[in-house]
Amino acid sequence: MNLAFIGYGNVGQGLTEILLLKQQELEDYYGFSFSIVAVATLHKGSVYAEEGLDGGTLLNHIRAGGHLSTLTQGIKDFGVHDIIKNSNADVILELSYTDFKDGEPACAYVREALNCGKHVVTSNKGPSLFHHHEFSKLARDNHLVYGFEGTVMSGTPVVKTALKCLAGCRIDRIRGIWNGTTNFILSEMESGCSFQGAFDEARRRGYVEADAAADVDGWDATAKAIILANSVMGGHVTISDVVREGIAGIDATMVSQALQEQSRWKLVGDIIRTNHGFNVQVSPVKLPYADPLAQINGTANGLIFETDLLGSVSISGPGAGRIQTGYAILSDLLTIKHL
Amino acid sequence: MNLAFIGYGNVGQGLTEILLLKQQELEDYYGFSFSIVAVATLHKGSVYAEEGLDGGTLLNHIRAGGHLSTLTQGIKDFGVHDIIKNSNADVILELSYTDFKDGEPACAYVREALNCGKHVVTSNKGPSLFHHHEFSKLARDNHLVYGFEGTVMSGTPVVKTALKCLAGCRIDRIRGIWNGTTNFILSEMESGCSFQGAFDEARRRGYVEADAAADVDGWDATAKAIILANSVMGGHVTISDVVREGIAGIDATMVSQALQEQSRWKLVGDIIRTNHGFNVQVSPVKLPYADPLAQINGTANGLIFETDLLGSVSISGPGAGRIQTGYAILSDLLTIKHL
Repeated sequence: MNLAFIGYGNVGQGLTEILLLKQQELEDYYGFSFSIVAVATLHKGSVYAEEGLDGGTLLNHIRAGGHLSTLTQGIKDFGVHDIIKNSNADVILELSYTDFKDGEPACAYVREALNCGKHVVTSNKGPSLFHHHEFSKLARDNHLVYGFEGTVMSGTPVVKTALKCLAGCRIDRIRGIWNGTTNFILSEMESGCSFQGAFDEARRRGYVEADAAADVDGWDATAKAIILANSVMGGHVTISDVVREGIAGIDATMVSQALQEQSRWKLVGDIIRTNHGFNVQVSPVKLPYADPLAQINGTANGLIFETDLLGSVSISGPGAGRIQTGYAILSDLLTIKHL
Repeated sequence: MNLAFIGYGNVGQGLTEILLLKQQELEDYYGFSFSIVAVATLHKGSVYAEEGLDGGTLLNHIRAGGHLSTLTQGIKDFGVHDIIKNSNADVILELSYTDFKDGEPACAYVREALNCGKHVVTSNKGPSLFHHHEFSKLARDNHLVYGFEGTVMSGTPVVKTALKCLAGCRIDRIRGIWNGTTNFILSEMESGCSFQGAFDEARRRGYVEADAAADVDGWDATAKAIILANSVMGGHVTISDVVREGIAGIDATMVSQALQEQSRWKLVGDIIRTNHGFNVQVSPVKLPYADPLAQINGTANGLIFETDLLGSVSISGPGAGRIQTGYAILSDLLTIKHL
């Protein structure tokens, strides 16, 4: 399977690490083998090698701060458009950062790739946030995979669980904690930090998005709520439909007061199917300890599917991380392999 | 898809209810349509109708205490062997009770069905408890499905999550609560019941297996531990490898003492991959409230997969129930449909 990376930050590097580590195992158990044929980055150039790049060399070069133009192998400055149109890639991996305004340029890349007969796997929330139904239909019509497991809760398989493992159930509600940064901040505040202190610690650990408002003001959680509503509940929800409130209004007094009441403040996403559509809300909620979501602490994520046939089914796991999100991409690649 | 039922108790009836309720939806969304061509029971006879039985009539007849010999439609006394060998069934549903000694006669039925080119879906723990690798290989070699989602945690999709959604991860440990009856008894004891009082309440509600020791002495949990070890972790574990202890030794004093220590007694299954194989244990463990498994109360079930790439991923949901286990069967039928 020939892979082309658009964006080569944490997720792309994490995936490469996994692929190198598990090369033999993936071939033995899943008949999966790969070749990295192209990489395009925003600030470090791009490279294309029909015969495949050496993954270890690529990883070391980038991690040492190298520019792709100085890589020994491959054709340099082969742009994204050329990679999509004129490379021998089978799969385009859209692993760049989410744009919350209109999802571009990722959406244009995804559309072009699917139209060119290439599978797409993405951890970028833009494409499914703005055009989920278009891209999943385009993929279906062209017998391709449009994989987006990595857009929600990193590699914790919530999308696959909903679509494959709960097939035949109607999901009536999804309630959960799916922004790890705010959950980390709120957990830190429970140990006595101020909001600012907790935020600084989150930033120090690299949890905060480039645009901090994406986390703190609930944009990231809103995007994931929309992706879940539209992809696994069949909704047609847009940003303006979501009632959104971030955690900036939660102060240390409120957090310690909640603890005295055996409760915890959490940024909760809540998607409810109604007779007329969906009610979607992202807001801080004071959850009693007995609520299963109150046990999701630090950077962990978790959600509860309310279904017609099974009642509540909960899943929790990592919400972020280089290897964890890299794995989400691998899991979609294995879906392509077994198409 | 032509279905033949072996055993027509709660699970078979639950599945029939779902199929009747969702007939149109299953056809529209999954292209799935079905015909019930045969039913064989232990005490109420058997019936075969090549053209398909009316599901509603069958369900009402059985629920009114009727014998299959008095059903208007179909050939009567068409035995299990004939159903497997000489019917037009595509799928054999093995939904009879688990035999913990050798899994018979279910294992013989499953083997014969797979050898005859028929898919098998089962909620009976016997086949995977005693011959998991044989049956999954036989199915693979014959391009058939051997579905056993319903053997562990009813319709909560633990088997599919492990096999499909965590593909590419190595599962190093599974720790969980997967016997609803004992969990219900322990939860009742926390509200002040004696062991006997809680047990009687569980029996009154229909939670206790025909053979009460299967639950209380940990046999049911042991069977599920073995199925998980062998099916999703690639083990070759047998009953004699499991360190097993039931909940009969847990008395009211221990339960209330634990609560004072912010802990709960739970019957915990624990499967650990080692360098030499697997350590498998089923035993009562006093879990502090902070342990995610301590929050699994009543008849609910839950487990934690420890994986190499994602760390901990937890899933919880119903552990039993007519509709819930019926759904497990449906989910395997949808796998067959999309083979």
